[in-house]
Amino acid sequence: MSGDFAVTALAGGVGAARFLRGLARVLDPARLCVIVNTGDDDEFFGLHVSPDLDTVTYTLAEAADPVKGWGLRDDTFRCLTALGRYYGDTWFGLGDADFATHLFRTHQLRQGKSLTEVTAAITRAWGVRATVLPMSNEPVRTVVHTEAGALSFQEYLVKRRGEGQVKRVELRGLASASPAPGVCEAITTATLVIVPPSNPIVSIGPILALPGVRQALRDTPAPVIAISPLVAGKPIKGPADRLLSGVGVEVSAVGVASLYQDFLDTFVLDRQDADQQQRIEQLGLTVLVTDTIMSDVDKSVALAQTVVEHGRNRQKC
Amino acid sequence: MSGDFAVTALAGGVGAARFLRGLARVLDPARLCVIVNTGDDDEFFGLHVSPDLDTVTYTLAEAADPVKGWGLRDDTFRCLTALGRYYGDTWFGLGDADFATHLFRTHQLRQGKSLTEVTAAITRAWGVRATVLPMSNEPVRTVVHTEAGALSFQEYLVKRRGEGQVKRVELRGLASASPAPGVCEAITTATLVIVPPSNPIVSIGPILALPGVRQALRDTPAPVIAISPLVAGKPIKGPADRLLSGVGVEVSAVGVASLYQDFLDTFVLDRQDADQQQRIEQLGLTVLVTDTIMSDVDKSVALAQTVVEHGRNRQKC
Repeated sequence: MSGDFAVTALAGGVGAARFLRGLARVLDPARLCVIVNTGDDDEFFGLHVSPDLDTVTYTLAEAADPVKGWGLRDDTFRCLTALGRYYGDTWFGLGDADFATHLFRTHQLRQGKSLTEVTAAITRAWGVRATVLPMSNEPVRTVVHTEAGALSFQEYLVKRRGEGQVKRVELRGLASASPAPGVCEAITTATLVIVPPSNPIVSIGPILALPGVRQALRDTPAPVIAISPLVAGKPIKGPADRLLSGVGVEVSAVGVASLYQDFLDTFVLDRQDADQQQRIEQLGLTVLVTDTIMSDVDKSVALAQTVVEHGRNRQKC
Repeated sequence: MSGDFAVTALAGGVGAARFLRGLARVLDPARLCVIVNTGDDDEFFGLHVSPDLDTVTYTLAEAADPVKGWGLRDDTFRCLTALGRYYGDTWFGLGDADFATHLFRTHQLRQGKSLTEVTAAITRAWGVRATVLPMSNEPVRTVVHTEAGALSFQEYLVKRRGEGQVKRVELRGLASASPAPGVCEAITTATLVIVPPSNPIVSIGPILALPGVRQALRDTPAPVIAISPLVAGKPIKGPADRLLSGVGVEVSAVGVASLYQDFLDTFVLDRQDADQQQRIEQLGLTVLVTDTIMSDVDKSVALAQTVVEHGRNRQKC
């Protein structure tokens, strides 16, 4: 029976990766497909860097830095330091071993491989059994318009530390982008679709904005379950609160649920936000209240177990 | 007077760099121009690597690894190790800090800069006051034909450790290559031209093969002095003996001198080879016998001092 159970997850960076790490332990990773945001992708030193793809891959390979959440465990930064000699300011953290991934990806892309193909080669090299799909093979670049002007997402998040009032978020390139091969199919053929706790505007938003993805989520016979990325009105990490208010969405679990309500079956709420249950149910969603803060791998496993269990039960309905 | 004294050197890798390190201490480095072989250039992991340019630059910056002769002092190899996950065999040594140079060079070249411009930026970043010129901005690739087939120079030298009988040496791309801006001018306007102890076939040979370079060396009013790369019939390092015999040249100081005789004024011979003085003089060259083995920086300085002194005296003639 578990052989028929196929889970597809939509993922951004750190929060999603923490959840996926638990998820990969409660089901056969070979039955897990992760569709990953590439709106955060950027070029550094001539290399194509895909932060969310790498965070997901390294986490599933159990090789991610457990403290920072991004990059590789015990990595060193000699190359980045040396790049300072040529480039001056080097504000984006790329470790020496991590550089190998960016070199390989860039080399393969220049040789005509698609990001889908390169990502498959990278996950294979790391022994990751889950399928990791980039959301698109065409460039979509998240641009955050703040009072300081238009910033690439990494400039906004890393260089400016997510500071400054957000006026709007632009997905540059979206008009000529389509979902990568397998993305919509992974949603419509799954037995359970999960939206882990990721930033709804800049991590999940770009995936949902691709033509056909939102419709696939509405059409899939699988239950679709999202986990709130906000607890007590604040993100665990990152600037989700400022981005939500910047685009005029209520900074709360209810606000996030409202963004997904057209395709969602169940919204998972942290116990601290149990008072929002009724408002979310009024959106027509089932609400599951549990502990959502994944401060260690056991908590990731417990949350994944609860969500998968709920998904299985929903299917019996 | 020393302000008018401008030295131009033709250089390959390690041997030349050892000499140049001394040379930069016996004259104003701002009056030194080094024309560097790029026939050894190759692509690794999608990056443009220029081993001889880097060896010369790092050496003049006093940052070269003193034991290996190539690469940066105290460099680490985490990125290369990590690349093994994607590429399997990683036989060409590239250190973490060294990667910064290859990244910067590749990035700049892709943005349309010439190798001459990029090299100037790299030497400036290292505080190198000498002018370092690539021999050409067009690709010339040294291919060594051995019994095992056609090998790129790095495959021959590093991967195969210079083993196997050489049948011939090909300079691929030569027909459509020209000397880089400034190369012939640096030869014709110098007050002294030096050919340091470099491999005559694969280090100096590609420079001489570029249209106009050999003629510039014949035409320059400056004395041209070469230092033998062979001592007692053997190179200090590298496969010069096998390459010379492979292309049918006598494996001796006399053999090397014969390759340069049309443009050379003076050939510098190691004391161990003093018995070859007469044969070289019969080629119409002046011979200077001295200690040429640069086992430490003091010996590099002493040899450079002797050569420069000889050059100054030749000018008074």
